[in-house]
Amino acid sequence: MPPRTQLRKSLPSEITSAAVPPVKRVPIHPGSLLSSNDLSIDELRSLLQLADELEREDPLRRDKRLLKRRISLLFYESSTRTRTSFELAAKALGADTSLVSAQSSSIEKGESLKDTGITLRALGAECIILRSPFSGAPYLLAEATGLPVLNAGDGMHEHPSQALLDLRTILNHLKAGSKATEKTLAGVTITICGDIFHSRVARSNALLLPRLGARVILCGPPPLLPEAAAQLAPGIKIERDFDRALADSDVVMMLRIQAERLAGLSLDIEEYKTRYQANVERIASYAPKALIMHPGPIIRGLEITSEIADGPQSAIAEQVRNGVAIRMALIIRALASKESANRKSGHKTRKRGGR
Amino acid sequence: MPPRTQLRKSLPSEITSAAVPPVKRVPIHPGSLLSSNDLSIDELRSLLQLADELEREDPLRRDKRLLKRRISLLFYESSTRTRTSFELAAKALGADTSLVSAQSSSIEKGESLKDTGITLRALGAECIILRSPFSGAPYLLAEATGLPVLNAGDGMHEHPSQALLDLRTILNHLKAGSKATEKTLAGVTITICGDIFHSRVARSNALLLPRLGARVILCGPPPLLPEAAAQLAPGIKIERDFDRALADSDVVMMLRIQAERLAGLSLDIEEYKTRYQANVERIASYAPKALIMHPGPIIRGLEITSEIADGPQSAIAEQVRNGVAIRMALIIRALASKESANRKSGHKTRKRGGR
Amino acid sequence: MPPRTQLRKSLPSEITSAAVPPVKRVPIHPGSLLSSNDLSIDELRSLLQLADELEREDPLRRDKRLLKRRISLLFYESSTRTRTSFELAAKALGADTSLVSAQSSSIEKGESLKDTGITLRALGAECIILRSPFSGAPYLLAEATGLPVLNAGDGMHEHPSQALLDLRTILNHLKAGSKATEKTLAGVTITICGDIFHSRVARSNALLLPRLGARVILCGPPPLLPEAAAQLAPGIKIERDFDRALADSDVVMMLRIQAERLAGLSLDIEEYKTRYQANVERIASYAPKALIMHPGPIIRGLEITSEIADGPQSAIAEQVRNGVAIRMALIIRALASKESANRKSGHKTRKRGGR
Repeated sequence: MPPRTQLRKSLPSEITSAAVPPVKRVPIHPGSLLSSNDLSIDELRSLLQLADELEREDPLRRDKRLLKRRISLLFYESSTRTRTSFELAAKALGADTSLVSAQSSSIEKGESLKDTGITLRALGAECIILRSPFSGAPYLLAEATGLPVLNAGDGMHEHPSQALLDLRTILNHLKAGSKATEKTLAGVTITICGDIFHSRVARSNALLLPRLGARVILCGPPPLLPEAAAQLAPGIKIERDFDRALADSDVVMMLRIQAERLAGLSLDIEEYKTRYQANVERIASYAPKALIMHPGPIIRGLEITSEIADGPQSAIAEQVRNGVAIRMALIIRALASKESANRKSGHKTRKRGGR
Repeated sequence: MPPRTQLRKSLPSEITSAAVPPVKRVPIHPGSLLSSNDLSIDELRSLLQLADELEREDPLRRDKRLLKRRISLLFYESSTRTRTSFELAAKALGADTSLVSAQSSSIEKGESLKDTGITLRALGAECIILRSPFSGAPYLLAEATGLPVLNAGDGMHEHPSQALLDLRTILNHLKAGSKATEKTLAGVTITICGDIFHSRVARSNALLLPRLGARVILCGPPPLLPEAAAQLAPGIKIERDFDRALADSDVVMMLRIQAERLAGLSLDIEEYKTRYQANVERIASYAPKALIMHPGPIIRGLEITSEIADGPQSAIAEQVRNGVAIRMALIIRALASKESANRKSGHKTRKRGGR
Repeated sequence: MPPRTQLRKSLPSEITSAAVPPVKRVPIHPGSLLSSNDLSIDELRSLLQLADELEREDPLRRDKRLLKRRISLLFYESSTRTRTSFELAAKALGADTSLVSAQSSSIEKGESLKDTGITLRALGAECIILRSPFSGAPYLLAEATGLPVLNAGDGMHEHPSQALLDLRTILNHLKAGSKATEKTLAGVTITICGDIFHSRVARSNALLLPRLGARVILCGPPPLLPEAAAQLAPGIKIERDFDRALADSDVVMMLRIQAERLAGLSLDIEEYKTRYQANVERIASYAPKALIMHPGPIIRGLEITSEIADGPQSAIAEQVRNGVAIRMALIIRALASKESANRKSGHKTRKRGGR
């Protein structure tokens, strides 16, 4: 696992240069999840087991786990699935949620992320779930507030809860249960295809999956997949020929292609589809048994056809479903820690699920 | 009751031509309400009785009816009263709600209605309440998800929960209780006046009221009320002279007039007011005892004056109040069905209001 | 306390001339808080004591105080801290909240404030929390609905809950507890510095603090602080020299400066900072022990530096925290009153915290 300081080096200057007096920085709360690298294999296993337990639990009992605890959702970008998934996960645990989005808040008035975080903490937030267009923003927020921060996607950097739900989806299909070890995915090949360069989902998965023994193939044209991407983690390989990658793959993760982006890069959409679209002909020929995944939103007819998205190999809806279980587990982990902020705000410490 | 296939014929091509593989279509969930024609008279009566029961019920007891069940509100159009009414109804029953609106979601990113629906289902939604600018969108959503879908207004097509709350308002004033039959409104004349052509409220009422024996008069200038409207259902008549319509009416439903629309149709606002405004002189002369209704939002001084809107004949606030009771009943009906989606998502089936 | 009629005189004509038939006006509900002048010293004391009690109370017990009661948040302006603060306060008491914001509602369709209020009441709202860009809007809403209305900021007029949380913050630091009397702040000098003219926070504080015996100094350049401001209440003085004001002050409230506004007034930002910025040199020299407050959002490096905002004299986060306690107390007060609307809507009256 790369040291956190190394990750920080890659943060853009607009974030790191913000007026944060170093003296006020506090250690990042251990209940945070900022990168998929934050979790040891042991923690990963606990989290997957907790997700199983929470998913099976009676809704009325589950409701008592974090009853009246306060979770803030701070979304600087539009989002349906990730925001709703975290929101429903928090509510399922009995927590009170409050959503602050760029559309209806003093975010518009130019308040800094740091000050918004301090305000949310003072309002009683015990955990902040952050979606931001800026890579590294969750680190800044975690250091400014001392609260557990869950990264719900930061710029082109990471989207760790997505990688965890993807992992849960893969493990379920391999009937591997939740007993994750360094070898659980040994011999399993996963291809991620599309706009790797701009994708935090690709990055979080590429960091996570090799740690469980998986072989990861990245696939896409050079403008969307620079050679340097192979350096992300050990066990990663680049293959420009999608058919060849498919022939080797047990799992295929398709990424959304934004037509505007292709245009900006002088890539031809039709040519892109010819080479990289997941369609019946290609999948039937080269990967008739592979699990097909997509983090959504999908663009039917571009990177994937309806036949594949809705077909028997598709795990797309299952990924979404797994997201709720994973996020319940992440929220429990965030608030269960002894360092949790609830003491400061006068909440009594409660045993997990104990009442 | 016109067969559903006939209704579907009128859907705009942008909806019906969407990439929905026919093989994936599932039957529309019987807990859905897509058109005011969906309900038999018996169902209508049960629904009205359930609304009565829910309205009277102790809020703390009512809260247990759908405790922790999951309702999604999917609103592609701005709305205060309908959205808040459904939201409060769901919360009053103890359900967890989540709002997805065009303003803050991947709807903006062009995700299709079908995929948004599948995502919401995978997130655990057991019922989707949909407001859409596209006529027929609720049918598409119901077929794509198999979930109970409540139509909260679809384009110029229907707004069935509005028709039901209007019916409840009328029945209350007639002291007819909730014992609806084919003859309950025999001898009752209801005039709907205004922009009939663009009004889903008018359409849903015009389909529903004659089935209980009412005589419905549609009133307005030809550009807002084509002659063909009389074909909507048996028992409907067109009358261009508002005063004459009023003289015959027990109930008058005024519809909002959007000034921009009049301008586009070269209708003069002052002339419109002269002919069709509900004002003290006109109502006192021609319908001094009629019940005055309006689905809102009202434009004071245009289609209705403040004296009438706030006067003793007005049932406007009562309509809004009845909306919450009706929508609680609709949500219970949606989730009570045996085919309800809650089994799939691991929820245990619970007896209605049983705990 | 100036009579309410006097306050009303200052309402802009677009509000007072709205088509509200005088005959429909009802008395303002006594649970309302429209101006910081609404509260007698005795009521103020009760409110502060209730805030203390609520803040200490066990969250699970507190949740039962207003279980399933209905609070509407009607926000015509963007807001993070005030909206979230009221929302969390209401939820902490067990109430169901519903947010209506200008971004996603028929507010966009031009519905009048009066009609939106009547609709919310008919939907079951028992209290409305209103943020409006129009001075006096809460009076109109209170008169139109008869409901308790909490003013969450109206134009350039008032923001009384902010003045109350500021008062609580000051009293805590003076170790004055919650035993407010006419003399509690005798001998205490509070300087408010910045854009007084446009600030509802300044106005609400300037009306409130002298009533407890405080001396209030207003500070700022003439375009942002007209001489007439000294007439707001007895005990108010204008001082253009910030250093001199600081030297006399126990408490300093800094106000946000909007750069666009300075530009419109031909004020030079650098000159403004030289004269009025709260920075280390100035505070250390002239007010090394004063409490530094700011209602937020702060503009770091403009009216206040990070060293001061994050420094040991700063009470900024504490103000936010006090806001939740004060607002819980205000909501309890709004709904506890005998005239509360809950009877009309069929809710049974419940003892406060009784169940």
